[in-house]
Amino acid sequence: MEYPSKLLEDAVSALSRLPGIGRKSALRLALFMLRSDAEISRDLSVSLARLRSEMKYCVRCSNMSDEDLCRICSSSSRRQGLICVVADFRDVMAIEQTRQFAGTYHVLGGLISPMDGVGPEKLRIDELVGRIVDEQIHEILIALSATMEGDTTAFYLAKRLEPYQLTISIISRGIAIGGELEYADELTLGRSIQHRVPFGSQGY
Amino acid sequence: MEYPSKLLEDAVSALSRLPGIGRKSALRLALFMLRSDAEISRDLSVSLARLRSEMKYCVRCSNMSDEDLCRICSSSSRRQGLICVVADFRDVMAIEQTRQFAGTYHVLGGLISPMDGVGPEKLRIDELVGRIVDEQIHEILIALSATMEGDTTAFYLAKRLEPYQLTISIISRGIAIGGELEYADELTLGRSIQHRVPFGSQGY
Repeated sequence: MEYPSKLLEDAVSALSRLPGIGRKSALRLALFMLRSDAEISRDLSVSLARLRSEMKYCVRCSNMSDEDLCRICSSSSRRQGLICVVADFRDVMAIEQTRQFAGTYHVLGGLISPMDGVGPEKLRIDELVGRIVDEQIHEILIALSATMEGDTTAFYLAKRLEPYQLTISIISRGIAIGGELEYADELTLGRSIQHRVPFGSQGY
Repeated sequence: MEYPSKLLEDAVSALSRLPGIGRKSALRLALFMLRSDAEISRDLSVSLARLRSEMKYCVRCSNMSDEDLCRICSSSSRRQGLICVVADFRDVMAIEQTRQFAGTYHVLGGLISPMDGVGPEKLRIDELVGRIVDEQIHEILIALSATMEGDTTAFYLAKRLEPYQLTISIISRGIAIGGELEYADELTLGRSIQHRVPFGSQGY
């Protein structure tokens, strides 16, 4: 495709590097910006530049933050002594949306994955161990993806945390709410049977 | 949804003002930018800012351009004397992609639409009339959308250009290539019968 303008071509190229945006959508977006209020593209340009350059990460849990300590770590209403371990700050957002967790978080920054060259030393596991002593943690909830990497990381964490007097729990696996038994894969269904809970305690 | 960071929230808000991008996609894009190379968001931010502030419009045809005169108007290989009239610079790109037109363009900047308060005086019609004399134009091809507004504008243009010795043509309407007769609407099918061409001259 030949573009009438190098400026347009550059904008389309930059937009089409985003996930899920092909050159055709990128062109549509660029043309929209040319036709709409100048404010829309200015706000977008400024906020994207600031997002990457000014974003901080909480010095304690490594969650996204505008301050040194994130909103959750600095909140007085969160239960101390209980840490939920997640791979990524997106997981923090997902769990926060459930409103089912009142403790603090610890973002590992990934999962152990020998295939991708990610060993435990690349994750913020030493920092987690440090927090257990400093903050008198008594419970760790492991909330990692139900994948090989997630399970490997959970297993490693459990081993590493064994010396401390801790309750270690892991989020349950099972049939999704609204999911039909018939369409569930056998591994998930099997796990949901292993992890069965006394009737009446399901929480709804 | 509560965001862990004001910077993230601002970026999501700015992204979700783009057409076809909801808050969920906007969040996905913002998080992608946080995780990927800083270069990706820098390029995007810079190119979007430049797109809106530095884009020029051809002084002759009003197409997008990096210079005063656009690539098409300044090309020596384009046929002079023949102007294709379009509503928008996007239409120029669409027609250029067909490689079927060798003349120059004139971008009106919209279509006559009394409902939206757009009268002929808001379009670049006087400039078109000026070009007809200045550039010794002998043919005008009207390439507007097959809508009420497009037809109204075409009708107005034809009236306005009547005093000049010009060949005025309009792009044909009909069944799309690959389109099935059975599924064509009756107006299009009717028009394709009115506009029938001698067999053997269809251009394929």
